[in-house]
Amino acid sequence: MERTEIESLGEFGLIQHLTQNNETRQASTMLSVGDDAAVIDHFGKQTVITTDMLIEGIHFDLMYTPLKHLGYKAVAVNVSDLCAMMATPSHITMSVAFSNRFSVEALDEFYEGVYAACDKYNVDLVGGDTCTSPKGFIISVTAVGEVTNSHYVTRDKAQVNDLICATGDLGAAYIGLQLLEREKRIFLENPKIQPDLQQKEHVIGKILKPEARVDVVEWLQENKIVPTSMMDISDGLSSDILHICRQSNVGCVIYDEKLPIHNQTKEMAMEFGLSGTSCALNGGEDYELLFTIPQSDYEKIVLSEKISVIGYITKPEDGTNLITQQGNKHKLVAQGWQAF
Amino acid sequence: MERTEIESLGEFGLIQHLTQNNETRQASTMLSVGDDAAVIDHFGKQTVITTDMLIEGIHFDLMYTPLKHLGYKAVAVNVSDLCAMMATPSHITMSVAFSNRFSVEALDEFYEGVYAACDKYNVDLVGGDTCTSPKGFIISVTAVGEVTNSHYVTRDKAQVNDLICATGDLGAAYIGLQLLEREKRIFLENPKIQPDLQQKEHVIGKILKPEARVDVVEWLQENKIVPTSMMDISDGLSSDILHICRQSNVGCVIYDEKLPIHNQTKEMAMEFGLSGTSCALNGGEDYELLFTIPQSDYEKIVLSEKISVIGYITKPEDGTNLITQQGNKHKLVAQGWQAF
Repeated sequence: MERTEIESLGEFGLIQHLTQNNETRQASTMLSVGDDAAVIDHFGKQTVITTDMLIEGIHFDLMYTPLKHLGYKAVAVNVSDLCAMMATPSHITMSVAFSNRFSVEALDEFYEGVYAACDKYNVDLVGGDTCTSPKGFIISVTAVGEVTNSHYVTRDKAQVNDLICATGDLGAAYIGLQLLEREKRIFLENPKIQPDLQQKEHVIGKILKPEARVDVVEWLQENKIVPTSMMDISDGLSSDILHICRQSNVGCVIYDEKLPIHNQTKEMAMEFGLSGTSCALNGGEDYELLFTIPQSDYEKIVLSEKISVIGYITKPEDGTNLITQQGNKHKLVAQGWQAF
Repeated sequence: MERTEIESLGEFGLIQHLTQNNETRQASTMLSVGDDAAVIDHFGKQTVITTDMLIEGIHFDLMYTPLKHLGYKAVAVNVSDLCAMMATPSHITMSVAFSNRFSVEALDEFYEGVYAACDKYNVDLVGGDTCTSPKGFIISVTAVGEVTNSHYVTRDKAQVNDLICATGDLGAAYIGLQLLEREKRIFLENPKIQPDLQQKEHVIGKILKPEARVDVVEWLQENKIVPTSMMDISDGLSSDILHICRQSNVGCVIYDEKLPIHNQTKEMAMEFGLSGTSCALNGGEDYELLFTIPQSDYEKIVLSEKISVIGYITKPEDGTNLITQQGNKHKLVAQGWQAF
């Protein structure tokens, strides 16, 4: 019998392969697999739905991830996908599986984080499933949000000359993870050495307790800015902008010097012998928003300190490029996180 | 630090514990944790949402579960929860995690079952997540359905003197599982012996490829029968009727002789030294519907061969009882499946 290794397809190739025969039967399905979330037309208005799975040993390491933060993050990353559609989050369901090494107190701590995130994002936890796991902790969250009048934003409508924007700062979560991994190695070698995480709150916070940019979505709505395309940055800017370019059939130019990188990220990157740019491009897990707007919205967008204009959309034949601080042009490639 | 073992609470105790501080913020939340599914009021009509997780080694054994059947079942058990609310299924999301022992061909087989179920139940697969798992195969499905005019059925409105009804036949999935487990043991001891599953299609089918009773929901709707309470039988009739009794604050009488048990189930139960009644009461995984109707609907309900009247609802102080074929009264207890 034939055996094709999953690695040979890659994550996106695998999804493509598995969904190539996916049929749409319901007239209410406005948007299916292939964006940050799906859109269902419920009785003339729209619900937006997304789901994410987090698995111990793959997505998190409980040696340095407090359970409360993990609970918060499990909600936040799903809310982030709703934000990426310009939807208003409303409900979540959460399934968890855990082995008997977890106590009720441990689960309480996890749910404390879940409820804190529900409170922060104004969502109701309305269902779920709890089961035993033969190994490790497994979390699956589905988040539901709302949009009216089909005002959701997909990845496939970026236009030539649109400005490319990113929220917050990039690369910090990646550096935070490197830092936690380093401290873990040091601790395992010599448990007497206490971790040195002073003045590293920003990068640690970005990996352990990311926030969904509901604030930016609200700001865009208040200022009547409708992005032409949007997604959240989870695999790394480089990989994610390529999704927008491919799905919109356009090219792009990103300016290295415009990338929003926090000072802590730059300093720590140096310590690790990495460039801040590389962390920002390929790091992933930022949960910031990446979107495109018409040039006519430039005057409005510069008023927000939360948003950086990092480049612009080009014709598809111009390719996808990074302009370095020295003015050199490099082809952008997806070096982001690969699950397989 | 205090450590409370999860076993000490039991599954329902744990859910109760973890959700005791769950707040409702959204006016649209009509029904939250505690029923087969949640109900969200979306713009004046209602969406119903439910989620379930299936884990290799806990919920299924790939040694005797064909991946195609597993894919089908993962969808069917979620659709069953929607049926238990009298909702019409419309959409699902599906997250899967798998280790590198799975090939693309294996996943294809799994998804063949998923798509077959989507076709059967007329639902769209609109999203999901794929990731690596350090061990085994993990599936998480969320299903969305619709009801109009708040015509969903919960577990908490059974009335004294209501008739208790069950669909299909009970206990078959449990016997099917015993049979597969026996054949597995025999095979492990002597791989040359071929499994003898002739004329056991019914019990094997019920465990490997259960169907959600969409047909019964449609029949009830066509015949304008509105159950006062309903749930699906997943943990075993005995455990599940106790949910209805507790949540409706009523008692019940179930007649042993009225329990719908397939001949194959009876015969195989005997072979295993079990009573068919015990399988029907405590087996679980039936995915049949359990519901209560006013006595005035009796004339209508007897017209359906798919539905059996198995008892009636009593005052709470009368307790929850089984009347044996000899006329003796036994207290019903939840011996159903316990995840912990």
